[in-house]
Amino acid sequence: MTVIATDQEVVTLVNVFTVTPDRQQQVIDELVEATRSVMRRLPGYVSANIHRSLDGSRVVNYAQWRRQEDFQGMLRDPVATEHRNRAAQLAISVEPHLYDVVFIDRGE
Amino acid sequence: MTVIATDQEVVTLVNVFTVTPDRQQQVIDELVEATRSVMRRLPGYVSANIHRSLDGSRVVNYAQWRRQEDFQGMLRDPVATEHRNRAAQLAISVEPHLYDVVFIDRGE
Repeated sequence: MTVIATDQEVVTLVNVFTVTPDRQQQVIDELVEATRSVMRRLPGYVSANIHRSLDGSRVVNYAQWRRQEDFQGMLRDPVATEHRNRAAQLAISVEPHLYDVVFIDRGE
Repeated sequence: MTVIATDQEVVTLVNVFTVTPDRQQQVIDELVEATRSVMRRLPGYVSANIHRSLDGSRVVNYAQWRRQEDFQGMLRDPVATEHRNRAAQLAISVEPHLYDVVFIDRGE
């Protein structure tokens, strides 16, 4: 399991892939493969959490890296770049942004 | 803290607000206020997790509801709707989608 908290030393990538419904599973498969074969051996990798939209139009990777520099190192890794290009080619558009968690609330 | 896992009985709202950097904090404040005053008393509410993009251009609410029907009930709640409209007016655009968690990986 993955933890979201305001006091963790992580930076969060929320990467939103807009897809056609017939390509949604292919994008998921590509992200799972990229995680298994590359991401998890890169420095500062914390977690990857792949989400499928119920309407078929989106895939979200909610990924955690230790520091912003670790994320930037991943962007420079040639094998990670190959996977990133492959996922981008399957999608209509890709919107990656880095985030800090600023507020959390849980019901009782 | 909030938990992301594939075996939880939740549906996940990933709501992406595109904002101008000068409005980013206002959108965050509005979402925090909506969570505190309305969301947490609605049936099926599990958690709200507000994220601020480092580049100033996005706010993401990663929110968990027990069932899709609970999320739809929130959409019909008049006070929640007021808050939703207020946040939307502060943003350039709002993209809410519901998701299932399909894959999780954590580094060692």
